[in-house]
Amino acid sequence: MNKEYVQPPRGVRDIIGIDAEIHEYLVEEFREVARLNGYKPVIPPTIEYSKLFEAKSGPEIKRSMYVFEDKAGRLLALRPEVTASIVRIYLRKLRGEPKPIRLYYVAQCFRYEEPQFARYREFWQAGLEIIGDQSVNSDLAVAYTASYYLDRIGIRHKYVVGNVAFYRVFMDNAKVPNEIQDEILHIIDKGETDKALAKLRRIVSSNFLDIIGSLLNTSLNDIEELILDSRGMLGEDSIKKLLNEYRRTLVFIDSLRELGYTVEYNPMLVRGLAYYTGLIYEYKSDKLKQSIGGGGRYDGLTSIYGGPYEYSTGLALGIDRIALALTEDKTIGINSTREVLVIIRNAPLVNGYNLLRRLNKLGIPAWVIETNSIKKALRLANKRNVAVAVIIGSREAKQGTVTVKNMESGEQRVVGEDEAPDLIKHIISKGPLSEPS
Amino acid sequence: MNKEYVQPPRGVRDIIGIDAEIHEYLVEEFREVARLNGYKPVIPPTIEYSKLFEAKSGPEIKRSMYVFEDKAGRLLALRPEVTASIVRIYLRKLRGEPKPIRLYYVAQCFRYEEPQFARYREFWQAGLEIIGDQSVNSDLAVAYTASYYLDRIGIRHKYVVGNVAFYRVFMDNAKVPNEIQDEILHIIDKGETDKALAKLRRIVSSNFLDIIGSLLNTSLNDIEELILDSRGMLGEDSIKKLLNEYRRTLVFIDSLRELGYTVEYNPMLVRGLAYYTGLIYEYKSDKLKQSIGGGGRYDGLTSIYGGPYEYSTGLALGIDRIALALTEDKTIGINSTREVLVIIRNAPLVNGYNLLRRLNKLGIPAWVIETNSIKKALRLANKRNVAVAVIIGSREAKQGTVTVKNMESGEQRVVGEDEAPDLIKHIISKGPLSEPS
Repeated sequence: MNKEYVQPPRGVRDIIGIDAEIHEYLVEEFREVARLNGYKPVIPPTIEYSKLFEAKSGPEIKRSMYVFEDKAGRLLALRPEVTASIVRIYLRKLRGEPKPIRLYYVAQCFRYEEPQFARYREFWQAGLEIIGDQSVNSDLAVAYTASYYLDRIGIRHKYVVGNVAFYRVFMDNAKVPNEIQDEILHIIDKGETDKALAKLRRIVSSNFLDIIGSLLNTSLNDIEELILDSRGMLGEDSIKKLLNEYRRTLVFIDSLRELGYTVEYNPMLVRGLAYYTGLIYEYKSDKLKQSIGGGGRYDGLTSIYGGPYEYSTGLALGIDRIALALTEDKTIGINSTREVLVIIRNAPLVNGYNLLRRLNKLGIPAWVIETNSIKKALRLANKRNVAVAVIIGSREAKQGTVTVKNMESGEQRVVGEDEAPDLIKHIISKGPLSEPS
Repeated sequence: MNKEYVQPPRGVRDIIGIDAEIHEYLVEEFREVARLNGYKPVIPPTIEYSKLFEAKSGPEIKRSMYVFEDKAGRLLALRPEVTASIVRIYLRKLRGEPKPIRLYYVAQCFRYEEPQFARYREFWQAGLEIIGDQSVNSDLAVAYTASYYLDRIGIRHKYVVGNVAFYRVFMDNAKVPNEIQDEILHIIDKGETDKALAKLRRIVSSNFLDIIGSLLNTSLNDIEELILDSRGMLGEDSIKKLLNEYRRTLVFIDSLRELGYTVEYNPMLVRGLAYYTGLIYEYKSDKLKQSIGGGGRYDGLTSIYGGPYEYSTGLALGIDRIALALTEDKTIGINSTREVLVIIRNAPLVNGYNLLRRLNKLGIPAWVIETNSIKKALRLANKRNVAVAVIIGSREAKQGTVTVKNMESGEQRVVGEDEAPDLIKHIISKGPLSEPS
């Protein structure tokens, strides 16, 4: 075999078999839960102008984008994430809609990174976005929906919460340029706080440096005091904003706890995307070291793209990682359909398809095979774990009958074509496999 | 507004609003019908090595591929079609499975062509493939499933059928190299039969030229005679193969007609893809000039990629075009959910989410908004066509009650938190909008 043809490109996958069924199950459940929570679908293009993402995705993502020229020399990119597209679409088409605007998407994203466990160059994101609402309720709204979804598919999860506004307000006051803020937050995100502080030392005065250093080590309870202690360094507006961010974080955490979730505040949580402006969080599951999703506030990303300032918040869940985090007992039920195989031998194919149509209308999964050996076809039926085989040979075709065979018990019966669908339905619904585990 | 940020790249679309809901409806129905017919999902990667498609997709598609180098200098392509990936995946992972192998996919494809009505640079294909079965039953199987799907979503459609084997066998016998065969078929596909024959004249003897010219003008009924008349020119194997192809085409067409579909034989139908080897067909709807899908036999594509020879057949439907062909009365029902809006004012957000969870578990679409003005929130409820508003203010929160307002009749009632879900369910299911049109 020609190996260069059969391999997919490095870092991307062929999703087949039970993995493909799990993927579809996870996506369909997500869509259903999103709709159940009043979100509307958006399907953004897979390719965008690369500058859309360069504007505010952050250095890591910029480095790992698939960028290429189209034949007219325009720089395009395979999307590394979806929020930038959603904001673009909002500005282009949805500005006149009543706010808040609640949107969901399921889309594959692309990052050119070293492949490793649970990290692929093409991966699937399921996301929620709310545009046009300042209230922490919107943060809670998307988090509630994500948790409801994760609960429904049986993923035990906890929240890790942070707030980048604490750092941004102090750095704004110390006149640290935005791009350097992004860079420093990115270094903090990698856990290299010493390096981040060393970099800041060259730019800001020691009292700013001290307070940022303290923020990195302060529990949420003590942040209010730390903010109030900064009254000398900051204007009243900044203090107000910080207290406001503190309170939002508290309400977010307390509400989730009251809803029964485990929530942990981590001052060093920053996340990879440079557009976050305030409250942020990640989802952790018991089964996986990596986070299975995350989100946060990205107020004003609309104005980075030249539009009016809008409050906005959202999150994305990693479908591939959730698939890895699914417990085994959850995946067993997914592929337990009870199929019917209609076997045609020396008879008109259309007899098979007329029966198939009637079975399909009853919701019974079925398909037709033409064979010159009933025995061979029954062997296939066994291998595919078929529940009922229906045999239409030349004799049956002449008589207007079919032979219905219960593949489990082995018993079979010749019945009129018209009686077959009900009999088959009866066999299928009585079988022990019909109760999904 | 910065226009360079808000536009998507030329030729690709933002699918939003009712269009996005229709897209999801079409995709979900397709998946359900495919599963109902015993097909299993496959999710191939969006990017492949470009040589996978260059091997046998045809000159038109090769010209319009998005090709780019990754950072290691490998030539990648955004898939212009999906069958090549499916065959690759079969060779890599599915060769040991019991045959026939029945697969389905839904995937976006990319072609860099001049944008025009119903032709986009990114477009969605829903496809079925059967590998490992020579019987015309497999051609009929995928066609039946596609028609069942189109019937179910209300698309009246007819078949246009051809068979490229008629041309290929004669050209094989006249020793026309494969690539030139592909080229000539491609010219026929564009309707330029004179040009195709002129090109052939330089390669083949006049009796071959005559018979190929006749094939282009012969109804299916007369093809048998034409084949038998060629006994002097062709070996017995070729005659047998041609008669076999003739009979397959006849059975395919007759069976579809017996199942109630309109089928037309068109000797000039060739289709754009160079990998077709025999029976081919397209779907036409009343509402659209362009075909809404098509398929055919691609026996032996597996050996082009260096694997063993396998019989195979498949089809793909164009989701974007089907969306355009949907009749209006079909689209009205799609977006008719009856939502509940839970309005929180000066009350704990968590009260809203506890209620939301109970509504969600009853399958009732709902979401929570925090407001400082009930009036404003009710105005939003009206704009969004909400069925029931639930108000939780400070008084309600203290009393453990909620105010339930029927947005249609305007009547409202204060009830205990625990009674609210049933009352809301009652209002929603009784409303006149609950009968989808």
